[in-house]
Amino acid sequence: MMTSSPFPDGAQRQAARQAKRDAVLLAAVRMFNARGFHATSLDDVAASLGISKPTIYHYLGTKDQVLLECVTLGLNQLLDAVAEARGKPGTGLARLRAFLISYVQVNMDDFGRCVIRTGDEMLSPESGKRFRHLKREIDTALRSLIREAIADGSMAPVDERIAAFTFAGALNWPARWFDPDGPKTAEATAEQMVDLLLGGCTPR
Amino acid sequence: MMTSSPFPDGAQRQAARQAKRDAVLLAAVRMFNARGFHATSLDDVAASLGISKPTIYHYLGTKDQVLLECVTLGLNQLLDAVAEARGKPGTGLARLRAFLISYVQVNMDDFGRCVIRTGDEMLSPESGKRFRHLKREIDTALRSLIREAIADGSMAPVDERIAAFTFAGALNWPARWFDPDGPKTAEATAEQMVDLLLGGCTPR
Repeated sequence: MMTSSPFPDGAQRQAARQAKRDAVLLAAVRMFNARGFHATSLDDVAASLGISKPTIYHYLGTKDQVLLECVTLGLNQLLDAVAEARGKPGTGLARLRAFLISYVQVNMDDFGRCVIRTGDEMLSPESGKRFRHLKREIDTALRSLIREAIADGSMAPVDERIAAFTFAGALNWPARWFDPDGPKTAEATAEQMVDLLLGGCTPR
Repeated sequence: MMTSSPFPDGAQRQAARQAKRDAVLLAAVRMFNARGFHATSLDDVAASLGISKPTIYHYLGTKDQVLLECVTLGLNQLLDAVAEARGKPGTGLARLRAFLISYVQVNMDDFGRCVIRTGDEMLSPESGKRFRHLKREIDTALRSLIREAIADGSMAPVDERIAAFTFAGALNWPARWFDPDGPKTAEATAEQMVDLLLGGCTPR
C-alpha cells in the first residue's frame, strides 16, 4: 500500500499548474467580457483571484497572450463542435443543424463570447494572425457542412457563401444579447434560432 | 429680370452651409469605418478635406458630436425604411421583407456601417443614451412588423423576440463583410439574404 506523500509527484504538479492556469483564464475572460479588454488590467484579474500580476505572467504571459489563449479556447470549442457534428448519423442537414446549435451555445458562453467581442486590432500583429487563421478554419468548416447538406439533397441549393455569412451573423449576435438569467435557457434559445434559420418563417 | 448678385441670400448661405456639413460628415464616417473611431482624429478628417480642425468644430462640434451625427444619420435611414415599408400594399410578410431588404442595404452603406461599428462606450454618456434610444426605436419597429405579419397569417407564429434578434444579427453582419467591389451587388446580396431568412433552406 502506498502512503500519501507531502511531496507532489510530477503528474500532481502538472495538474495543479493546469488548474491554476484555467482559473486565471476564466477570471480574465469574464472580466474582458464584462468591462472590455482595454478597460481590464492584469492587475484587476490578479486581484480578483488574490494573486499577484507576476503570478499571471508566470502561468500565461502578457495580456496579449492571455487574450489569445482565451479566444483560442473559444475557437477550439467550435472546432470540437465541428468534429462532434461530423460524427453524427443522418442527413447533411441534420449534421449542419447539430453544429449550428452547438455554435450558438459556445457564443453564449465565456470563451465564445470573447471570440465575438475581440477585434483583430486588439491583439498584437502576430496573435491577430493566429486568431484570423483559427476563425477561417471555422468558416471553412461551416461552408463545407452547408455544401455537404446541399449535395445530399437535404438542404435547398442556396448560395453557400451567403448562407454561411447569414447563419454566422445571426448566431454570433447572441454573444451580445443573450442573458443567461433571461426567460429561456441557452439550449432552447439556440434550437429556436437554428430552426428559424433553417426552416424559415413563411407558412408551409 | 433679376441680375445675379455676388452676395448670397439667406437660402443660398443655408444650402452652402448644409453642403459643407454633409461633406465633413461623409469624410468623417468613411475614415471612422476604415480606421476605427479611436484611430481617427478630426485633424485627419480636416486634412482629407483641405480644411482646418476649427472649421469642423464650427460646422459640427467635437469628435463625439461628429460620431453621434453619423450614427443618427444611419439610424434615420433605417427609420425612413420603416416608414416606406409601412406604406407598401400587400401582406405583413411583404412589408417585413421590404423593410429587411432596405435594412441590410443601409448596413452596407457608409452611415449604417458606422451604426454597427459603434459601441456605446465610444460615445459620451449623453450621446450614448441618445444612440441607444434610437436603436431601440428600430428594434421596436422590427418587432411590430414581425407581429403584424404573424397577425395577418402571412408569417408562421414564431417567437417575435427571437425572430427580431435572429434577423437583426444576420443583417447587421454585412456591415463587416460586404465588399461593394465583390461579386454581387448590394441589392442582390440583400435580397438573397432576406429570402434565405424568411424562406429557410429546407427543401419544400
